[in-house]
Amino acid sequence: MNHKELIADIAGKIDLTKTEVEHLLDIIVDVCCEQLEGRGSIGMQSFGVFDVKKREERLTVHPTTQKRMMIPPKLTVNFKQSSILKDKLKNVPS
Amino acid sequence: MNHKELIADIAGKIDLTKTEVEHLLDIIVDVCCEQLEGRGSIGMQSFGVFDVKKREERLTVHPTTQKRMMIPPKLTVNFKQSSILKDKLKNVPS
Repeated sequence: MNHKELIADIAGKIDLTKTEVEHLLDIIVDVCCEQLEGRGSIGMQSFGVFDVKKREERLTVHPTTQKRMMIPPKLTVNFKQSSILKDKLKNVPS
Repeated sequence: MNHKELIADIAGKIDLTKTEVEHLLDIIVDVCCEQLEGRGSIGMQSFGVFDVKKREERLTVHPTTQKRMMIPPKLTVNFKQSSILKDKLKNVPS
């Protein structure tokens, strides 16, 4: 399901046009991005929690050249599903 | 930022009441949960992609009792940030 399909699906369940839903989704994403840029976390009830974690710098060895390289530290967004979503997935045949 | 703060923040940027935003967010979460229960993925432009991954069953040893236990397989939701969000986080001091 891509961005367009998501918008169409949401618009089908609510009294809004696709353009309005798209605008709204943009705002939600903007708010979430802003929060994450401030290294904050976002809790969405019954869905899960987003937070930003730092991956420390580390040394790797290039497999063919055997050159050692330092990978710089970076920030990544982490998502942890809520227990409600986890329970829902329990009933899905894996 | 919890669910309430998220709703208040979004409502402040759009011409909708908090109740309307909450209802809307519920629908979005519902659509996403449904999609994930069907083991589908969800792509949100400029935010990232959600998908469901299976964690295989594995053996663990209880540290104190030394009992070996089989952890059953389970499905977890995985989130991968988009390159846009990744670039935004590059400018954040870690």
